[in-house]
Amino acid sequence: MHLLTLILLIPSALALWPNPRNVTFGSSSVILSPTFWIHWAPSTPAPGDMTAAISRTTSQLYTDNLERLVVGRANADLQMLAYASELPMLHLEIIGSRPINSIMAEATSALEDRDESYMLSVPADGTAAMIQANTTLGLLRGLTTFSQLWYSTGGVASTFPYYSFFPGASMIYTVQAPVMVVDTPAYPYRGLLLDTARNLYDRTSVAFPNVTDKSYSFPIADIYRTLEAMSYVKINMFHWHITDSQSFPLTVAALPELSQYGAYSAAQTYSLQDVQDVINYAGERGIDVMMEIDTPGHTASIYESHPDYVACWNLEPWSTYANEPPSGQLRFAVPEVLNFTQQMFASVLSTLPGTLFSTGGDELNTDCYVNDTITQDALSASGQTLSQALSTYVLGTHDTVRASGKTPVVWEEMLLVQNISLGPDTLILVWISSDDALAVAQKGYKMVHGPSDYFYLDCGAGEWINSATGADSWCDPFKTWQKAYSFDPLQNLTECQYDLVLGGQQLLWTEQSGPENVDPIVWPRAAASAEVFWTGANGPDGLPRNSTEALARLHDVRYRMVARGINAINLQPQWCALRPGDCNLT
Amino acid sequence: MHLLTLILLIPSALALWPNPRNVTFGSSSVILSPTFWIHWAPSTPAPGDMTAAISRTTSQLYTDNLERLVVGRANADLQMLAYASELPMLHLEIIGSRPINSIMAEATSALEDRDESYMLSVPADGTAAMIQANTTLGLLRGLTTFSQLWYSTGGVASTFPYYSFFPGASMIYTVQAPVMVVDTPAYPYRGLLLDTARNLYDRTSVAFPNVTDKSYSFPIADIYRTLEAMSYVKINMFHWHITDSQSFPLTVAALPELSQYGAYSAAQTYSLQDVQDVINYAGERGIDVMMEIDTPGHTASIYESHPDYVACWNLEPWSTYANEPPSGQLRFAVPEVLNFTQQMFASVLSTLPGTLFSTGGDELNTDCYVNDTITQDALSASGQTLSQALSTYVLGTHDTVRASGKTPVVWEEMLLVQNISLGPDTLILVWISSDDALAVAQKGYKMVHGPSDYFYLDCGAGEWINSATGADSWCDPFKTWQKAYSFDPLQNLTECQYDLVLGGQQLLWTEQSGPENVDPIVWPRAAASAEVFWTGANGPDGLPRNSTEALARLHDVRYRMVARGINAINLQPQWCALRPGDCNLT
Repeated sequence: MHLLTLILLIPSALALWPNPRNVTFGSSSVILSPTFWIHWAPSTPAPGDMTAAISRTTSQLYTDNLERLVVGRANADLQMLAYASELPMLHLEIIGSRPINSIMAEATSALEDRDESYMLSVPADGTAAMIQANTTLGLLRGLTTFSQLWYSTGGVASTFPYYSFFPGASMIYTVQAPVMVVDTPAYPYRGLLLDTARNLYDRTSVAFPNVTDKSYSFPIADIYRTLEAMSYVKINMFHWHITDSQSFPLTVAALPELSQYGAYSAAQTYSLQDVQDVINYAGERGIDVMMEIDTPGHTASIYESHPDYVACWNLEPWSTYANEPPSGQLRFAVPEVLNFTQQMFASVLSTLPGTLFSTGGDELNTDCYVNDTITQDALSASGQTLSQALSTYVLGTHDTVRASGKTPVVWEEMLLVQNISLGPDTLILVWISSDDALAVAQKGYKMVHGPSDYFYLDCGAGEWINSATGADSWCDPFKTWQKAYSFDPLQNLTECQYDLVLGGQQLLWTEQSGPENVDPIVWPRAAASAEVFWTGANGPDGLPRNSTEALARLHDVRYRMVARGINAINLQPQWCALRPGDCNLT
Repeated sequence: MHLLTLILLIPSALALWPNPRNVTFGSSSVILSPTFWIHWAPSTPAPGDMTAAISRTTSQLYTDNLERLVVGRANADLQMLAYASELPMLHLEIIGSRPINSIMAEATSALEDRDESYMLSVPADGTAAMIQANTTLGLLRGLTTFSQLWYSTGGVASTFPYYSFFPGASMIYTVQAPVMVVDTPAYPYRGLLLDTARNLYDRTSVAFPNVTDKSYSFPIADIYRTLEAMSYVKINMFHWHITDSQSFPLTVAALPELSQYGAYSAAQTYSLQDVQDVINYAGERGIDVMMEIDTPGHTASIYESHPDYVACWNLEPWSTYANEPPSGQLRFAVPEVLNFTQQMFASVLSTLPGTLFSTGGDELNTDCYVNDTITQDALSASGQTLSQALSTYVLGTHDTVRASGKTPVVWEEMLLVQNISLGPDTLILVWISSDDALAVAQKGYKMVHGPSDYFYLDCGAGEWINSATGADSWCDPFKTWQKAYSFDPLQNLTECQYDLVLGGQQLLWTEQSGPENVDPIVWPRAAASAEVFWTGANGPDGLPRNSTEALARLHDVRYRMVARGINAINLQPQWCALRPGDCNLT
């Protein structure tokens, strides 16, 4: 006889990402009424970016045009929809006593003051849906969740005469009403780092060598698209690594020569307006911008405008003086260099609405200064050791950060390798290894997780430093979404240290990336940490998160992103996306 | 004292890719005359695709707008150009006694009949340049080389009044005239495999669910763009893996039910016209199409239309019956299945102009048939062993291939694992390991190299089969361009076996790829094998090819591809691209 087919059947669940902390759902179908609209309920007018968010959400409902990821796609649901009730509207309500601010104002407030919580209800009986929140930022998160509930019949509404005038001639429906969501993030910092100092401006110099009109600046559009995708999964921090040894594209008002000479070309710079445009675009989407001007290492490009401030510039072999070419680091022991750095930071800080600013501090090569006469003379003059001089420099720059009302952020080496007595408010970025979180906690500092062994998006593409037959990435292998998803923010920590963890982020360094691949290398992988730090250890069912359950939802994230114009890569063949569980390791 | 900067100076050389077999160049600058044109010299009119190639090349000269990859970019060359002579025209001449055919006719002729050789001269004295070849295909290769000689001043021609009316207001120039090239490929088969059975049609179903007008079919545009990029590096074979277990998108005239039921959806199929469009687009660019309908394995999708012909369909655990989900293989021991396969092949073969056709043959799972009653009954009836039945089936399908005047091509297992007595004309595709080439040679068969340990473009992105924390690719690590470039087509072979090597190809399997990432995952890496099999073991300088010399030229390939709209990934930061040798391992 013929062997029977055994297909593992998994009940389809709401494809929300990140998973809400609390959610209940039913099995009734609800169709968006042809006259569906989103109603701003408060008596005071909606802030401009709230109105824009309502418009974007409304548009997505009709343009996602995503058929459900089941065998048969939309056709599998058509019969059921004949009995669906209609959702007439969605009310947005601000509750609590906080004044109503713009989304951007809420998104750029101090981490401890942010309130992204919301409640969402979608009844099954044809009565209105509602989102309630204390802030416009919370309403935005609720709208994002709401937009993930809906699927399209792929243009067959016309078979239902009553809906033939429906936008897109599709019915927009959900199959699991009533839905009730009570949600708030597990961690306040959920970020993505993008490095724009290596390559993101290629297109400008190659395809548009004469472009001065930034509206043609592909990379800015690329950053916008990345921010838009971040908002789809409730990532709320854009860690902008904007300068490095290869180029200094950031225009600094007080020191215009930095980008004038340090950028690849005049066309390959971020103007003051570009930066404000990015900050505003992010803020309207509930995303704060934490800018990083990496110091005192990763600063070879400053040599182009201030050669006296940079030691070991472009020496051979570069590997003696830096972790990657070109070598070159600030002469931090020289008093003028601290003054210069403080002037640079002050000028930039005054343009940033957020409360976090990273002074960098990774991969400092101390051997560089051993034979640097200028540094040695400065140390003799001050009577300081190199370590003491570094401490003076870093703490001096942090004073400048605090003077502007912001909190200094540094990479872990400043605390764990250089042993600088950082202010207790300083936020530490863990990157070298997930094991280093414990050492940071033991010193009592707050931290953000970005360990290369889980969260580096660039690993696994081979070493970009050239060699005869090529080498593996220093952080090989490729970090799969499952690997990132398996991260435990509290691993190795004692309960009294838990509060030191503010969140985490995935990171894209761009020695080998640029506009050409930023979408597929980041998405949907970066959604993994977004859920780790929003949903926390357990899913809404109270069970530990696990990638087998998450995969079906992550396929949905990817297909919805593609529908919204993000070139997110497919995780598996479509055959698997339609059959949860059938493409697991057996 | 301040340490001096030591920059390794490498003299810039012509950035031709693949490197010609023979080339000499000088150090004079030549500017394209404002009235430059390409002249078809033969008395008979140019074939239509030759005229189109001349137009494309002329357009690229003015639209590449690529500044030279040197510090200072175009500005570094401006002074020198004031003394440049002008190139008035380029003559195209057909030499020898062969009749003049279209590029497509030459590109689809038998491998042993193809003539891609050409001679190119670009004088430094202002006299005309010339390309001479025996065929239009050779002229096309010469035009491709010619187009790689030219750079743009990035819009500063206006500072030279005489050129102010020049298209694009840039001067187009080369800095190493006179150039003399005498070129012919080392190997006749230089390919790229693209798998379009897994995912390439996502966009159609997600973003354009109702598209029937194929002009909106993103994946076809994606294949076109890939073919265009292939032509830039003289790749001459498109190995089209068009069907697999996940879907059967190919429309077969004699058996329309195959795609009607086997494709993901009606919109996710390649029509007969689509296939001809791809074949013609490729042919006009000097590329032959070798289609593959993989049999008897990788055929689960045939179950949808012909359930009786497929054994072990979608069984759990799939890993017992197949190398990847879903399981399902043709019941090759059943006579009707051979007849069906021959009918399917005959219908498709009649539409293909090329001389190679792949019947597949990889990863057959013989355990599947042990408990398949229908297969066992068929074996009893015929008195054959499973192995004998497989031989009967494969040789039977190859008879159909030969009956259409073509040469059968199979993956290595048919020869090395199943030990089928394949006809001596059969071409073997090596893929499992580069070590297997020797065994193929020892059996005396012709081969094409596509070993996973050098040429698989999909390795290193993590295992797509889902597991708790993710697994590495089965063929980890990522295959860098340097790794591919280091491949020796003759390794382990004796001199008398050298003639068995027809060439090689890099391959993209698309379980984890699609329109979203096909450009950056393929380019510029696939240019590595293009040079290995065109240029051969030694460069034009007579020295062995090496990646350190090649890197500067490959950067040029990448930047020119980006200028032409291919999203090729950057290999290193732009800082390195402008400074050959400064970003090598030290």
